[in-house]
Amino acid sequence: PEKFKDKVTEIASNTKKLGQDDPRRVIHSLKVGLALTLVSLFYYYQPLYNNFGVSAMWAVMTVVVVFEFTVGATLGKGVNRGLATLLAGALGVGAHHLASLSGQIGEPILLGFFVFLQATTSTFIRFFPKIKARYDYGLLIFILTFALVSVSGYRDDEILELAHKRLSTILIGGSACVVLSILVCPVWAGADLHSLIALNIEKLGNFLEGFGSEYFNKSEDDQEAKDDKAFLQGYKSVLNSKAAEESLANFARWEPGHGRFQFRHPWIQYLKVGTLTRQCAYRIEALHSRLNSDTQVLPEVREKIQETCTKMSTECGKALKDLATAIRTMTKPSSADSHVANSTAAAKSLRTLLKSGIWEDADLLQVIPAVTVASLLLDVVNCTEKIAESV
Amino acid sequence: PEKFKDKVTEIASNTKKLGQDDPRRVIHSLKVGLALTLVSLFYYYQPLYNNFGVSAMWAVMTVVVVFEFTVGATLGKGVNRGLATLLAGALGVGAHHLASLSGQIGEPILLGFFVFLQATTSTFIRFFPKIKARYDYGLLIFILTFALVSVSGYRDDEILELAHKRLSTILIGGSACVVLSILVCPVWAGADLHSLIALNIEKLGNFLEGFGSEYFNKSEDDQEAKDDKAFLQGYKSVLNSKAAEESLANFARWEPGHGRFQFRHPWIQYLKVGTLTRQCAYRIEALHSRLNSDTQVLPEVREKIQETCTKMSTECGKALKDLATAIRTMTKPSSADSHVANSTAAAKSLRTLLKSGIWEDADLLQVIPAVTVASLLLDVVNCTEKIAESV
Repeated sequence: PEKFKDKVTEIASNTKKLGQDDPRRVIHSLKVGLALTLVSLFYYYQPLYNNFGVSAMWAVMTVVVVFEFTVGATLGKGVNRGLATLLAGALGVGAHHLASLSGQIGEPILLGFFVFLQATTSTFIRFFPKIKARYDYGLLIFILTFALVSVSGYRDDEILELAHKRLSTILIGGSACVVLSILVCPVWAGADLHSLIALNIEKLGNFLEGFGSEYFNKSEDDQEAKDDKAFLQGYKSVLNSKAAEESLANFARWEPGHGRFQFRHPWIQYLKVGTLTRQCAYRIEALHSRLNSDTQVLPEVREKIQETCTKMSTECGKALKDLATAIRTMTKPSSADSHVANSTAAAKSLRTLLKSGIWEDADLLQVIPAVTVASLLLDVVNCTEKIAESV
Repeated sequence: PEKFKDKVTEIASNTKKLGQDDPRRVIHSLKVGLALTLVSLFYYYQPLYNNFGVSAMWAVMTVVVVFEFTVGATLGKGVNRGLATLLAGALGVGAHHLASLSGQIGEPILLGFFVFLQATTSTFIRFFPKIKARYDYGLLIFILTFALVSVSGYRDDEILELAHKRLSTILIGGSACVVLSILVCPVWAGADLHSLIALNIEKLGNFLEGFGSEYFNKSEDDQEAKDDKAFLQGYKSVLNSKAAEESLANFARWEPGHGRFQFRHPWIQYLKVGTLTRQCAYRIEALHSRLNSDTQVLPEVREKIQETCTKMSTECGKALKDLATAIRTMTKPSSADSHVANSTAAAKSLRTLLKSGIWEDADLLQVIPAVTVASLLLDVVNCTEKIAESV
């Protein structure tokens, strides 16, 4: 029982954390509950039930399946479902009519052939990456509706009425989802993508700002304290952000204009910035591994390059943070240019230092990578800046 | 029309490529078509139809929705769907009974409350990352079935029979999917994961084997030729392989024993190896950017370190490729140890060289990173080896 109690407490605290991390999750859950209860009214309320009959079930199904966390995903699924049902319904009626012309024996064979052909091609089409990203759900519904309509028509000759009913209930369910998700505390995929990109750039900035002092004062801290420093770990989430960014961008394309974003906002640009940010993060990953390496740096060597290196890293970090703020507020970056210029200057003076310096010690191996990666970062910062300006 | 024709040719060649890249896609499409046609028999065949009525529709739906590319995904979705329908059906009947006790007015209110409560909590539970990975679909079906059963029961007092029919048709559809996906040319997520990991390691190995000569003979090649070399680009796909690996591992957990894999094969190990491989790839990304940097390396400097560097890189590459083969054939790596030992030795001699070398030129900046990253690689190779042995 002791163990069980622990387990319960753990789950409770996890739940609380999940809600606090993003309160929109709680709101979203309430919204789904609300939409579902509303749609269930079709069953309760007699006159409506007489109109739609069992088809009202489709409204419930639509709500459950279509209602997603972000507006874009909900809209995308709703539009996919609506269009696919319409198209497949029409085709299904056509196939059914064609098959019924071929007599008692030919009909099931022909229908079976149509279903097989349609399911096979649609399933294959779903493998195209571009289509998978945007219309996967639509194709699924397309297969489903075609099979249901063409086959159920074999039993029921009121097929047109059935298709009409199903389509209208799906429309009702879908529009309930869309309206609720837009009107009540909307979660815009576009805005999420926007702040994710800004946050990622800021994380890299934080790392770089802290890196200089961290690296050169290494021996004074102990290992434990370093692991606690969140800003040094923050960049790790950037490394694997690709999937999240791409799905958000896909959702964002479905969204109408909202807030500071217009319809057809250049979401592709965000992906490009995201890719550059990730490349920068790869360099930082390499830098970070330097922090934890065992080999000691000779103090004399360290002193010589400490100033310029720290400056490069800090200025890079400042520039990135400035860019992040600029993206967030959608203004031109104010001081990023000067920070970049500062770090370029620092990199240059470091190069001269290295040219002139007569190194008699072996610990170059320890120091130079930091410098090189920092100069790599400069390139990346430049690229990022170019694109940030185009936003 | 010219443009239209081009478009058609392009789509045709894309389609052909998609099929040739992985012929299993074509087979999968045919399998879906077959399963769907088989299940449609329920509608054609009179006695069966009399037994199940409209509920046969659920078999069609189940096939369309559950049939996935890999066996693991199909099994996971099937089990999720079956269990969720069973549970939610039982709960829905209970809720319906409870509500019917409360009289004419109380019934719809109570039912609405139940649906709201259930939808809200289930939606929230779907946000837990662990549950999302494995039981997301089950929870969706849970919400759906509960709403349908508890609410439709308001109309139809034959609710138990309805639930029974629905469950059995879902079972029929689901088992048709599972049987077909296992018996006809199965695509095992586990085997896919296995070969993906091996392929990724091999890609890194290819890069490293080629890197040494590529880097040091740089000036002789022109830029264009270099971009064509596929082995230098191959590692890029490794960088973002995390999502694919994780979903495959999730699917693989559902699969029964097959081929050389037992049930409960340690798929987690693969994820660990994958993470290490990715860390190695980050280093390689940094190395790769060195290939394209503009600054020239002085020939004298290059000559001095060429031999050891090339050796390090090549030996690392060989070790990785050997590991990849070992994973593929599930044997102990035969020569990886000696290759690692060789490259460690090369790294040591390089360090001594650097210690003794009197560098009067400034292009250290160009040379050292390659060396450092190569030595980083050594660590990673060591880690990978440890885990590869545990397979």
